[in-house]
Amino acid sequence: MCVVCADVEPTTLLEQLISHGILIDTGIDGIYGRSGVFEDVIARFEDLVTRTGAEGANPMAPEVMRFPPAMNRFHFERSGYMKSFPQLAGTIHSFMGDDRGHFDLLEKLQNNEDWTGQQKTTGVVLTPAACYTLYPIVAKRGPLKSDGALFDLQSYCFRHEPSKDPARMQMFRMREFVRFGKPKQVQTFRAAWLEKGEVMMKKLGVPVHVDLANDPFFGRSGRMLKNNQRDQGLKFEMLIPIESEEKPTACLSFNYHQDHFGTTWGLIDADGETAHTACVGFGLERVALALFKHHGLDVDAWPKSVRKALWG
Amino acid sequence: MCVVCADVEPTTLLEQLISHGILIDTGIDGIYGRSGVFEDVIARFEDLVTRTGAEGANPMAPEVMRFPPAMNRFHFERSGYMKSFPQLAGTIHSFMGDDRGHFDLLEKLQNNEDWTGQQKTTGVVLTPAACYTLYPIVAKRGPLKSDGALFDLQSYCFRHEPSKDPARMQMFRMREFVRFGKPKQVQTFRAAWLEKGEVMMKKLGVPVHVDLANDPFFGRSGRMLKNNQRDQGLKFEMLIPIESEEKPTACLSFNYHQDHFGTTWGLIDADGETAHTACVGFGLERVALALFKHHGLDVDAWPKSVRKALWG
Repeated sequence: MCVVCADVEPTTLLEQLISHGILIDTGIDGIYGRSGVFEDVIARFEDLVTRTGAEGANPMAPEVMRFPPAMNRFHFERSGYMKSFPQLAGTIHSFMGDDRGHFDLLEKLQNNEDWTGQQKTTGVVLTPAACYTLYPIVAKRGPLKSDGALFDLQSYCFRHEPSKDPARMQMFRMREFVRFGKPKQVQTFRAAWLEKGEVMMKKLGVPVHVDLANDPFFGRSGRMLKNNQRDQGLKFEMLIPIESEEKPTACLSFNYHQDHFGTTWGLIDADGETAHTACVGFGLERVALALFKHHGLDVDAWPKSVRKALWG
Repeated sequence: MCVVCADVEPTTLLEQLISHGILIDTGIDGIYGRSGVFEDVIARFEDLVTRTGAEGANPMAPEVMRFPPAMNRFHFERSGYMKSFPQLAGTIHSFMGDDRGHFDLLEKLQNNEDWTGQQKTTGVVLTPAACYTLYPIVAKRGPLKSDGALFDLQSYCFRHEPSKDPARMQMFRMREFVRFGKPKQVQTFRAAWLEKGEVMMKKLGVPVHVDLANDPFFGRSGRMLKNNQRDQGLKFEMLIPIESEEKPTACLSFNYHQDHFGTTWGLIDADGETAHTACVGFGLERVALALFKHHGLDVDAWPKSVRKALWG
């Protein structure tokens, strides 16, 4: 019997997190409030990511940027996101009418009719991944230096996929390091993070497994993209069981984009060639959920080694 | 001559912040990237807010909650926001079609036509103010205890008002303390914060001025609401000159909602009466901008007393 909810034993991880006040139900699958405890775990993990990024021989100091959860719609359109993942994107619409239009809107709202007919597309869309805002900013700066560039990003992201799986939130935070440069430079960056990431996550005492992966490209034409991505080894994911043992959740991902963003945005390296890019992404809510799943709901009772890795 | 941009002297605060890399242009007015320096100022100010909240005789410990930038559309509709501020809200729309619909969408995108016709309203809207998500959550918990309740919130918020004034962002963070209880309890909370807030901001060495205010209610019928709000002294704002000396910017606001949210959400106090609510809100980007405006773009050169208040 759960001491908090008293009458019904919560069975799923999501129910347990909600009944213990770690996540807060808002009536929408995938949109949850976060308690102070949950946020502290994320802040501690973010510090660990920062420290891990600074380890190794001659680490490159990243330029830190933080983006709001919305981005330029024109940049979003040019990124090709609607070609690959139309089902996940969120566009932002606003009322731009007058008193008369407002009156009609309120009447519809009052009658429980669809009142959103007057909502017009704005210049912004929800950020689908932390790095989508970055590429046009870097392109505008002109050619890269000879050692390329490295950025440290974090942003709330949106994906329209309502689900009871707490690891599949509609609004979640993604931390990212994004490397720009020659193919060799960005491949070395990704290879280093594949190693560093595994060491880092093992300190957290969670079972990890790295595997070749593909993005959830949309529709029939997306199947070919998935196969190409796997065949070329462009995406690796670090999986941890959260909602299911059989289908563990991707908590970190390691992506080599080749010249995809370089070509899209005209990114040029120091020799005048199209720049290559790679990124490592950390699903912050997913990592926190993995920790609660494997170490229990009471952070004070987590294993000493895990507490030390996070709280020092 | 600016050392960074070399050729053109930036004249406005926004241009200065961008040319010094403190804010990052994304091509959309009111949507900016934040540098590590800007984020650090906000983090230090948030700590100061937390410490200030814990000062005084027998301070009530708040329950900490953090919300994502989107909320339940049904709760948003019931809140009355579309009645008061339809022009500022942002609804979130997604593509829910099939391969054929996707093909049409991509064709429109390719031809630079409006491709958003197939975007359907989702169950979520952008959060307009940090506390809008909170009221239905508190209502669901049942009657308040005799000393009421206090919450510590923070959230990214959206307001559709593109502007060159950096203090009028479309996406910004709001920190809030929200008090629930008897009229006397919530009025005492607001009065205490009107004092504490002034002391806190004076430590930051910025010129502050507290004034009676009103919300930007929409349209003709909104004029009456504005007058009522002012006549009853329901809203005070702490103003600091940022973009203009004549029209200083509201950086903190102190609001007594009476039983507005209590009635809307069926919030009940310990005696079975409709609960009253009040909040104090901190516009985090606005406070950071005020600091850069009054102390300059180099945080290391800010006055010692200001650095001490923030960095300790």
